[in-house]
Amino acid sequence: MAFRFEILGKDSLTQARLGRVETLHGSFSTPAFLPVGTQGTVKSLTPEELVEVGVEAILGNTYHLYLRPGHETIGRLGGLHSFAHWDRPILTDSGGYQIFSLGDLRKISEEGVTFQSHLDGSLHSLSPEKVIEIQRSLGSDIAMVLDECVPYPSPYEYVKTSTERTTRWAERCLRARQEEDPALFAIVQGGLYQDLREASARDLVRMDFQGFAIGGLSVGEPKSEMIRILEGTVPLLPERTPRYLMGVGTPEDILEAVVRGVDFFDCVLPTRNGRNGTLFTSRGKISIKQAQYAEDKNPIDERCSCYVCRHYSRAYLRHLYMAKEILSSRLNSIHNIHYYMNFMAEIRSAIQKGMLLDFYTHYKSHPGRPDEG
Amino acid sequence: MAFRFEILGKDSLTQARLGRVETLHGSFSTPAFLPVGTQGTVKSLTPEELVEVGVEAILGNTYHLYLRPGHETIGRLGGLHSFAHWDRPILTDSGGYQIFSLGDLRKISEEGVTFQSHLDGSLHSLSPEKVIEIQRSLGSDIAMVLDECVPYPSPYEYVKTSTERTTRWAERCLRARQEEDPALFAIVQGGLYQDLREASARDLVRMDFQGFAIGGLSVGEPKSEMIRILEGTVPLLPERTPRYLMGVGTPEDILEAVVRGVDFFDCVLPTRNGRNGTLFTSRGKISIKQAQYAEDKNPIDERCSCYVCRHYSRAYLRHLYMAKEILSSRLNSIHNIHYYMNFMAEIRSAIQKGMLLDFYTHYKSHPGRPDEG
Repeated sequence: MAFRFEILGKDSLTQARLGRVETLHGSFSTPAFLPVGTQGTVKSLTPEELVEVGVEAILGNTYHLYLRPGHETIGRLGGLHSFAHWDRPILTDSGGYQIFSLGDLRKISEEGVTFQSHLDGSLHSLSPEKVIEIQRSLGSDIAMVLDECVPYPSPYEYVKTSTERTTRWAERCLRARQEEDPALFAIVQGGLYQDLREASARDLVRMDFQGFAIGGLSVGEPKSEMIRILEGTVPLLPERTPRYLMGVGTPEDILEAVVRGVDFFDCVLPTRNGRNGTLFTSRGKISIKQAQYAEDKNPIDERCSCYVCRHYSRAYLRHLYMAKEILSSRLNSIHNIHYYMNFMAEIRSAIQKGMLLDFYTHYKSHPGRPDEG
Repeated sequence: MAFRFEILGKDSLTQARLGRVETLHGSFSTPAFLPVGTQGTVKSLTPEELVEVGVEAILGNTYHLYLRPGHETIGRLGGLHSFAHWDRPILTDSGGYQIFSLGDLRKISEEGVTFQSHLDGSLHSLSPEKVIEIQRSLGSDIAMVLDECVPYPSPYEYVKTSTERTTRWAERCLRARQEEDPALFAIVQGGLYQDLREASARDLVRMDFQGFAIGGLSVGEPKSEMIRILEGTVPLLPERTPRYLMGVGTPEDILEAVVRGVDFFDCVLPTRNGRNGTLFTSRGKISIKQAQYAEDKNPIDERCSCYVCRHYSRAYLRHLYMAKEILSSRLNSIHNIHYYMNFMAEIRSAIQKGMLLDFYTHYKSHPGRPDEG
């Protein structure tokens, strides 16, 4: 097993940890944000551009890659790293989330889940064993178990049944694992029911997983509920393995989770927002399409040192957006991912200096980037 | 006038010339191919990427930039170079071609042309004087006169009337020029009628232009007709000023024109083809969407040294194309522009070595890249 997680430091006033993950494809620092490379590419960007803004690891979507071009194809081509020209760590999800959000006519059973492809309507079945096989073919560094991401809101009985099945699926994933397989993370479910979260965590931590994710949050529930569940769940997870909050999120939510002891995050937000013209700045978000930027010579953010802020005006970025130019998506995505990477680096630096609570307090009162105060 | 054209060498067996153009924003070698930056960006690419594949000068479309974001806006922002982060030479067309191909309800008179914007239907009038003013605001290095690009086929009388008006417009453009303005090129029209081409060239070369373009070709006429007109027109143009074949074209057509004495070219072909999945290789064009490439580990072209061919397989490029990923347009465009730049460099090298006729003969019998034989 090439996977190793080392805790380099802990914040004394919060639950935050500073860590380092080692994989066959190199290491990355935590707390970490992984940009999403849905279909084998972080949309619009090259690997070199990701490295330039400080990205150390990315996420790949098993559901999308399984459907197109197919995991067997990627396997025959040498795996996802070689296919996508990305030689650093890759975490792959299990496909569960997309099956339940994108797949049509899905049917869930003890065996697994059957669904229609959102691309062509073709019928597919995925089992816990199958998603392990798929992630093996992709050659990811960190694989996830098959889970059902329970929608919000869901009744107690449904969540209980689903969560118990997710736990049984996790056990089957573990049994299906082979010698050279990726590290495997389990996913705690349980919706917004504390007792179900506890049961899920209790059952999963007994098994031999290399890390634990918290799933089923940031699915539309109030933020206070997300925080309540985080506070109730993180302490149930082992100290010495990574904790991963799936699909989160905004910088604010990431910070809330870091102070509660979470180590990994992933989200499409910086890239999707970028394509939609929403840009993160040290003074909060701006929408570049607004007419006020039509002749604005300033960069997106004067405090930002990214390629885009060094060379382009808001006026040009607005023009590219209005003209629907491809370069618009690229430049906006570079800036937003740079913002996220810088944000995570500042969080890690604050933990190291024992200043995370100051950072947190300041950020809450000055949304945007904390060093501007 | 910061513009200078120096002929560095002439081929003894063809009409080809090797040259160097100097502008306020640096120089470029001829025969030159200028990628098209329609709306202030060569679609999908950054200036750094253009420089990396050897681009020395680009073309900007006056029609598009006039409509959006507006030449006055670009002028207030410091000109197109600063706006688009491109510090090398820019040639701008006059907008004539787009008015006639994209504008709705256009009405042409001696004064100029009135048309509706293809964007929002708004009414606009452009005169010879106005297009000079627009190109001044853009801050281009080489400006073009307003012309009517006569469609193919057109009756003799129409072409005669139109061409004579284009000549009068050219004279007005020249009179409207101010001290610090860009170099100004006239455009020879005349359709496929040799006597009209002769009259157009004769009248224009009497005036004080820094270069002469040949317009109204590659608009659907048979290739043999294009070559006939080229052969009849180029010899009428001055030796010591650049000759520019507008909107051309395929590598084959460029080579045909170079051996007949043409120095500049521009075309959307490498970028548009790239976005459509058509790639230039040393063995001819390929369509990357074809199923045969689904598991093809080879680069687009084994003989190509571009970023894309160094790092990505045909299989990955096909996947990106099928998945409609933005990165597909980028990588395909980089490769195709690299192909064009390499092609032009090989042409220049062949002229320098006195081998252009060999190059030409070989290329005609081995479409693709001439050094593969």
